[in-house]
Amino acid sequence: MSSHRGADPRTAAALRFARRAASGPRAPLPRALNEECGVFGLIGNDGPAASRVAMGLHALQHRGQEAAGICTFDGEQFYAERNLGLVIPHFTQAHVLEQLEGQAGIGHTRYSTTGAPNRRNVQPFYADLDIGGVALAHNGNLTNARVLRQRLIQQGRIFHTTSDSELFLKLIAQSRAPQITDRVREALGVVEGAYGLLVLSQDCLIGVRDPVGIRPLVLGRLNGAPVLASETCAFDLIGAEFERDIEPGEMVICSADGTVKSVRIFPAPAHPRPCIFELIYFARPNSFIDGQSVYALRKRLGQRLAMESPVEADLVAPIPDSGIAAAIGYAAQARLDYDMALIRGHYAGRTFIEPTQEMRELGVARKLSANKGVVDGKRITLIDDSLVRGTTSKKITAMLREAGAREVHFRIACPPIVWPDYYGIDTPDRDELMAATHTIDQMRDAIGADSLAFLSLDGIYDALDKGPRGEAPAFTDHCFTGDYPTSLADQDSGADCRPSGTLSYLKERTA
Amino acid sequence: MSSHRGADPRTAAALRFARRAASGPRAPLPRALNEECGVFGLIGNDGPAASRVAMGLHALQHRGQEAAGICTFDGEQFYAERNLGLVIPHFTQAHVLEQLEGQAGIGHTRYSTTGAPNRRNVQPFYADLDIGGVALAHNGNLTNARVLRQRLIQQGRIFHTTSDSELFLKLIAQSRAPQITDRVREALGVVEGAYGLLVLSQDCLIGVRDPVGIRPLVLGRLNGAPVLASETCAFDLIGAEFERDIEPGEMVICSADGTVKSVRIFPAPAHPRPCIFELIYFARPNSFIDGQSVYALRKRLGQRLAMESPVEADLVAPIPDSGIAAAIGYAAQARLDYDMALIRGHYAGRTFIEPTQEMRELGVARKLSANKGVVDGKRITLIDDSLVRGTTSKKITAMLREAGAREVHFRIACPPIVWPDYYGIDTPDRDELMAATHTIDQMRDAIGADSLAFLSLDGIYDALDKGPRGEAPAFTDHCFTGDYPTSLADQDSGADCRPSGTLSYLKERTA
Amino acid sequence: MSSHRGADPRTAAALRFARRAASGPRAPLPRALNEECGVFGLIGNDGPAASRVAMGLHALQHRGQEAAGICTFDGEQFYAERNLGLVIPHFTQAHVLEQLEGQAGIGHTRYSTTGAPNRRNVQPFYADLDIGGVALAHNGNLTNARVLRQRLIQQGRIFHTTSDSELFLKLIAQSRAPQITDRVREALGVVEGAYGLLVLSQDCLIGVRDPVGIRPLVLGRLNGAPVLASETCAFDLIGAEFERDIEPGEMVICSADGTVKSVRIFPAPAHPRPCIFELIYFARPNSFIDGQSVYALRKRLGQRLAMESPVEADLVAPIPDSGIAAAIGYAAQARLDYDMALIRGHYAGRTFIEPTQEMRELGVARKLSANKGVVDGKRITLIDDSLVRGTTSKKITAMLREAGAREVHFRIACPPIVWPDYYGIDTPDRDELMAATHTIDQMRDAIGADSLAFLSLDGIYDALDKGPRGEAPAFTDHCFTGDYPTSLADQDSGADCRPSGTLSYLKERTA
Amino acid sequence: MSSHRGADPRTAAALRFARRAASGPRAPLPRALNEECGVFGLIGNDGPAASRVAMGLHALQHRGQEAAGICTFDGEQFYAERNLGLVIPHFTQAHVLEQLEGQAGIGHTRYSTTGAPNRRNVQPFYADLDIGGVALAHNGNLTNARVLRQRLIQQGRIFHTTSDSELFLKLIAQSRAPQITDRVREALGVVEGAYGLLVLSQDCLIGVRDPVGIRPLVLGRLNGAPVLASETCAFDLIGAEFERDIEPGEMVICSADGTVKSVRIFPAPAHPRPCIFELIYFARPNSFIDGQSVYALRKRLGQRLAMESPVEADLVAPIPDSGIAAAIGYAAQARLDYDMALIRGHYAGRTFIEPTQEMRELGVARKLSANKGVVDGKRITLIDDSLVRGTTSKKITAMLREAGAREVHFRIACPPIVWPDYYGIDTPDRDELMAATHTIDQMRDAIGADSLAFLSLDGIYDALDKGPRGEAPAFTDHCFTGDYPTSLADQDSGADCRPSGTLSYLKERTA
Repeated sequence: MSSHRGADPRTAAALRFARRAASGPRAPLPRALNEECGVFGLIGNDGPAASRVAMGLHALQHRGQEAAGICTFDGEQFYAERNLGLVIPHFTQAHVLEQLEGQAGIGHTRYSTTGAPNRRNVQPFYADLDIGGVALAHNGNLTNARVLRQRLIQQGRIFHTTSDSELFLKLIAQSRAPQITDRVREALGVVEGAYGLLVLSQDCLIGVRDPVGIRPLVLGRLNGAPVLASETCAFDLIGAEFERDIEPGEMVICSADGTVKSVRIFPAPAHPRPCIFELIYFARPNSFIDGQSVYALRKRLGQRLAMESPVEADLVAPIPDSGIAAAIGYAAQARLDYDMALIRGHYAGRTFIEPTQEMRELGVARKLSANKGVVDGKRITLIDDSLVRGTTSKKITAMLREAGAREVHFRIACPPIVWPDYYGIDTPDRDELMAATHTIDQMRDAIGADSLAFLSLDGIYDALDKGPRGEAPAFTDHCFTGDYPTSLADQDSGADCRPSGTLSYLKERTA
Repeated sequence: MSSHRGADPRTAAALRFARRAASGPRAPLPRALNEECGVFGLIGNDGPAASRVAMGLHALQHRGQEAAGICTFDGEQFYAERNLGLVIPHFTQAHVLEQLEGQAGIGHTRYSTTGAPNRRNVQPFYADLDIGGVALAHNGNLTNARVLRQRLIQQGRIFHTTSDSELFLKLIAQSRAPQITDRVREALGVVEGAYGLLVLSQDCLIGVRDPVGIRPLVLGRLNGAPVLASETCAFDLIGAEFERDIEPGEMVICSADGTVKSVRIFPAPAHPRPCIFELIYFARPNSFIDGQSVYALRKRLGQRLAMESPVEADLVAPIPDSGIAAAIGYAAQARLDYDMALIRGHYAGRTFIEPTQEMRELGVARKLSANKGVVDGKRITLIDDSLVRGTTSKKITAMLREAGAREVHFRIACPPIVWPDYYGIDTPDRDELMAATHTIDQMRDAIGADSLAFLSLDGIYDALDKGPRGEAPAFTDHCFTGDYPTSLADQDSGADCRPSGTLSYLKERTA
Repeated sequence: MSSHRGADPRTAAALRFARRAASGPRAPLPRALNEECGVFGLIGNDGPAASRVAMGLHALQHRGQEAAGICTFDGEQFYAERNLGLVIPHFTQAHVLEQLEGQAGIGHTRYSTTGAPNRRNVQPFYADLDIGGVALAHNGNLTNARVLRQRLIQQGRIFHTTSDSELFLKLIAQSRAPQITDRVREALGVVEGAYGLLVLSQDCLIGVRDPVGIRPLVLGRLNGAPVLASETCAFDLIGAEFERDIEPGEMVICSADGTVKSVRIFPAPAHPRPCIFELIYFARPNSFIDGQSVYALRKRLGQRLAMESPVEADLVAPIPDSGIAAAIGYAAQARLDYDMALIRGHYAGRTFIEPTQEMRELGVARKLSANKGVVDGKRITLIDDSLVRGTTSKKITAMLREAGAREVHFRIACPPIVWPDYYGIDTPDRDELMAATHTIDQMRDAIGADSLAFLSLDGIYDALDKGPRGEAPAFTDHCFTGDYPTSLADQDSGADCRPSGTLSYLKERTA
Repeated sequence: MSSHRGADPRTAAALRFARRAASGPRAPLPRALNEECGVFGLIGNDGPAASRVAMGLHALQHRGQEAAGICTFDGEQFYAERNLGLVIPHFTQAHVLEQLEGQAGIGHTRYSTTGAPNRRNVQPFYADLDIGGVALAHNGNLTNARVLRQRLIQQGRIFHTTSDSELFLKLIAQSRAPQITDRVREALGVVEGAYGLLVLSQDCLIGVRDPVGIRPLVLGRLNGAPVLASETCAFDLIGAEFERDIEPGEMVICSADGTVKSVRIFPAPAHPRPCIFELIYFARPNSFIDGQSVYALRKRLGQRLAMESPVEADLVAPIPDSGIAAAIGYAAQARLDYDMALIRGHYAGRTFIEPTQEMRELGVARKLSANKGVVDGKRITLIDDSLVRGTTSKKITAMLREAGAREVHFRIACPPIVWPDYYGIDTPDRDELMAATHTIDQMRDAIGADSLAFLSLDGIYDALDKGPRGEAPAFTDHCFTGDYPTSLADQDSGADCRPSGTLSYLKERTA
């Protein structure tokens, strides 16, 4: 695995982007391959695994709302249930849980991409192998999935999903090693990219984290039984205790008797680079990453932002709920009042049903309302955790001005996002990233704000006590820098499985 | 209409309660009669009414999540759609909206009581009368509904719902007056209780507020067209401008040409008494009541609470989202840090599906998580807007201690709730109201907090600039005082429609 | 109740038709008022009533496939379930049956009219009255329903369905008689038309048949418990024994102790006139009417038809399944081979989903296929029980010729249908009745048959041993003769509930 | 491929059965592998293929009611829709058909086995291969499916269904031949058993019939475009003309230009042996097999049965509808009256919902009723096409006696069924085949009939003009004789994919 850092990482990424842009109009990259997800598993539990997996998945619901699935094993047989929709209420129904027998189980919750969701892509994936049944749940994205897929299809293999995660299953099945652990190791030798991966076999529950440590995976204990999850918040809900982060490149093999064996699949990296977006954006505020409270880290980003980009104002307000921690930090540092300029509604859930034009235009107003009683006549510093397309920010600014705001100052608790992600975050195409095509002044004008500032790259490393960024940055931060920590085989090869640029010749309805 | 204030209101209420308790085991009062709801209507719109009614109902979704309905009129014909579930996504589907033709319409969103929801009870209600079609949506509750129902059944009338709102329709149908407005007036002369009522006829859109002004109703304009809603937040979403509150006892008759005629159905009360719970609890923070920002009022309650019941602590935290405004006010007044001790999840929505025992016990943890990074080792003052049963408070205290909190001090931004409501708020039975059966010390111990304090009754009136409470209180505050502003015929008569104490001899499944 | 026989019944009917035709384009009569249905009830059963009512309704499924409902009574409480769709599988589910408690119950199965079915119209209807709960199921149609409806609306009553059957409920509720039996009697004194009516109160199960005896109703016993049904075939399925037909104008009052009290609501008619279409068309072949096997009667119609209209042919074939009995009778009488020229499929069920044009054109071919192996080179006499629009006959003739038939001779085992029904049979408008607008020669040509003949009116009376027809015909036969046995108030008055000619100002979706 | 005829075929089969029986209690063979199905395909159509495939599948609905699927190709892209339930109404909806673009398509209708149906097993199956997309529909069953499946799993392949048909897809994908036709040929060289197989590639529509000709496949033309179907009745419905039967072991390659190329995959068998059960039992009466009308053949079986086993009786009656043709033949030969002793209902459709005990006991009575008017006092000869478990026959006999039948004589138009099928017919286990465990006298007594007779084996060959049976029988008739025309590798090897005898370690809910 070669990194993509070179003379100037921005240059390499820019070239890649230019190459793609030059190749003319082509079908959009299928979003189904680019998802953020959550995984959860346990073994050796002193009761049915299913309800605890369900609770763990519920705690990880923020990592994916399109679909969820659970697969359990009772020592003889595997049991599976996969469903489009949220974990609750489907996976809290007694008749669903009862048929998921056994005291070991894994689960997966899946990101909601645009377009119709597809039943086939719902994880965990399962296969009957000669060495027994194997179930698998994957958070992350592979960067050579298409190259591998194309190669396997040329070898006569059939894919049943459009998910890159199916590759793990294919490679594990194909391995001739007698042990599941060796098969997983062989498979991981071939793939590149990001993963927090759970594999449930009839012998053990395996957890692996990619060699760079891009995606997270944590180990806990529930009355002694090993538990694995994408985030620690899942432990809190089921009453498990956090033990430690799985290391980049580490495989843990958990048994029903409670033993956890650690194996190094890849040599320990000189400097692990977890994805900085987990800290900034994805993780639940009450999760801990690398021993640090996510909420506390975000507050520190807000404090640093106040130091870097102060502004005279009457109050500091968050975009709820994403900007709350940073806004509290900013307000404290700036010694300004913290208040709610925007009120969040609780009934604005995603919908796949095509609404009328009028409804679509509602946009953010379905979810956020200006709090006129606070806003009227005031100069407001508005804090958010990030700025992607800028469309929401524009609508919010207009809403606040409509409600009487005298000034609206936007402060963003991370640097400008200028490069797409290929590791499991569903970023828009580059030309939809506002910061990739606008200067900061242009962005401020487009949004209609009185001022706009981003946290600096050095500032973020400093605030997290990992600064300066330097030669060996402590995070994967390509969205700000274009410095991708792995090769990007699919991007470089332009690999597709068929000429038209989509993954399959088949269109199937899945209502 | 006689008020229930007397020598000592608490005595009268206590007697009533004692009488009920003494009458031995009886079927619980059907909750379906006791609901908080939201209403919305407009006429003379310059486009289809349905999508705007849907948006208005969405903005009022916090007032009822069980069901919603819309009825429109196109000058010839009425169109209706009623649905169990939230407004979005059902009422944002093009094929649903398209068949609701016409530029006038009313809508209703209904509170989610426990037990299976019933299709028949979903409003608006509709009837073909000799004077044409009439549709009706009602927020509130009548206090002589059962007495009237019993009387009408004895006269040979058939009820199709178990909702008290059907009485309006029956009384309007029965009136022999030639004008719908006179029929509505006649009907209102017979009923007692609380209402914000919308009636759509082929001539006009009528809005009425009960003579005491218990339930709210506001008038706005959308490009000149009259709009009526339970709360101003519905105007914001559709871009309408707030004009004024409907007065207690006032009827407004809105026409398609934009005229709004005001008629006094009841003499203006010497002192209107809107329900204090709208301010404290129900209304969206961004709504305005009587010209005041609800959010700002709640902040003032928090400030007053800090003055009345200070406590040494490291931080002030809200129960999100209900306690946020008061907590911000309290922290500012107390000069303490405001921070998030609890993180709210966004996927914990109500479910009518019966879960497993383990899932049920999750309770509040499905929705709130302790924020260990903030809480650990700290003394916390926790603010909420009210305390009803105390079960959630107990779980939260335990969660915070588990996360390392050194002290937990509960501060409630209203007085103890000791009497049930009969005007449309679904309060539990008296013996489930914690404050009705415990002293404050007992409550503190039951919750497990280090201290507990409530805002005083005088404090609340003071904070709202309506103090002192005195002889002519500015609010309906019976839940704190037992001082009910109307007669309670149903309660006093023990009126039921059948011996067993339930409303109907029929049980009907409505899956 | 005055009959509509006069100098020449055809003249009266023709005048009425002409009047309607002359009144210009108007909304079609709402079909929802014109349905054939099935009813079933029992009381004093030695086990749960619900599953037996469900079986009885299943046996009556041919009388209505749109919807079904059951209402039971357990001595304290009524229980109801109403559902769009067939009886099986909905009413065979344990969880549905279990909640329909009690040993007395009635059920209703409803005819499938075109257009979207409506939940509100599904019977049994139920009301809480001052004398307790009352449930009601009605087979038939009232001829003064609109006149009565209009009158009641003018008196301030509200209708919740567009079904004429709701009138029974309204009239029973309105009666001030203390006994349910007297209330039913009062109600029946006001309505005109056809009914087999079941009423379940907390005291008894009542069955009544209209004074002319147009619609059927039979009494049976299940282990001593009284059972009432539209047809005897329902008794066979549950193992009940047939006791007798309810007489025209008779009310039977069945009690839980097994007693059946007979009361004459109307004087016994000089000559009862059951609807001849029950014999010819509606009843299941294995039912008995007036002591006669329906199948055997239809065979006799076929025999008579062979005598009246012989034709040289190679074989006699039925339109399956409606023409089978008559074809077997015809073949035996004509001493010709009986064979299957058409094969009926079993998967052609009605669908409310709008298909593509191509699918719609399939028409009868979805259900019937030419049996080339039998047909090829043959002269075929094709027998059916009736001919309404002629469109199916035309397609069948073409199919048979396509399959090689040398000659196709149509023989219809009843006279030409030239007048619409107003008693519960959903006949098309007169201008869609082929025989009303064509001579027999024209019909033969339109169908494309080599010959066409109908059974004569005298022939049908003769064959049924009730001939000649004479002054006091033994059947209601207006569809052939225009001789309606009751007044037709709605038709004569042109009564509607609103100017546009539909029943309600409301359009409501019922998906 | 070796046949299983030897010294005494019954001996070999008996040994096999004994071996299985001796191996002790084991999980039942999964029925999902043993299904009768229907296939339909066309290419070069002058309009959208989908609606015609849907019509073709509807005509084949009798071959499978659990699920149906269609896959089309528009020259660029494949489109699929697979659905649990009948063809109509799902596949007649415009929005379903419209998204199945293209003028070539194949479809599959699937047999309804007991237990929960599984979405994954619904055909057509599809795969993206290196040579493009391939869709596949299979009628029949492989006899070495498990052996092959086990082998492929050992080679690291993953199966996604429990259907043997998936093997075709795997083998085609695995072949390295450049042409789809060669790949299909390679695949067919490995499998053994019965198939009518359709393969749709981007180049052509391929049809193949197994080398023995067990399962049927016919070729037709629709305005010149080639059409393939399991039975000719599908041609009649869409207006296509029958061209010829596909020969055993023949592959036809149909192109969009209308050419049909024939290739011999296997040498023409000395004597093809189509499954006799297609004639006797499965095929629609209006289909033609090998140029013969199925209906006419069944009539001849009835005639022969009358010659072999006459009985004095008052009438001859069929079990409707399966026995109709044979009964008409029997009656004509015996010069007895043909009449309907049983009436078939039209609303008794299969249900997967678990009913109450009482409902389950209804059994055949849900579907058939005794026709008392015909039966009472009569001696009845009852004709059916086959007798499997005998439970229905027993209930029918009881029903007829209850209705007054004096004598009931059962005559079965085929020999006793004593051996299970392995070629796609879902026969029960041998110990549930009544004739395998009872003498004819014992069967008669168990059924409660006055007499019972089966058509002789010689009789059936004679009646079909293929007699005597001799050394080279014209049909596959193992159910009567134990003479299986292929090897039975799965049965002989006891091959399973896992020790517990089921196909997969996974249980998955498929609600």
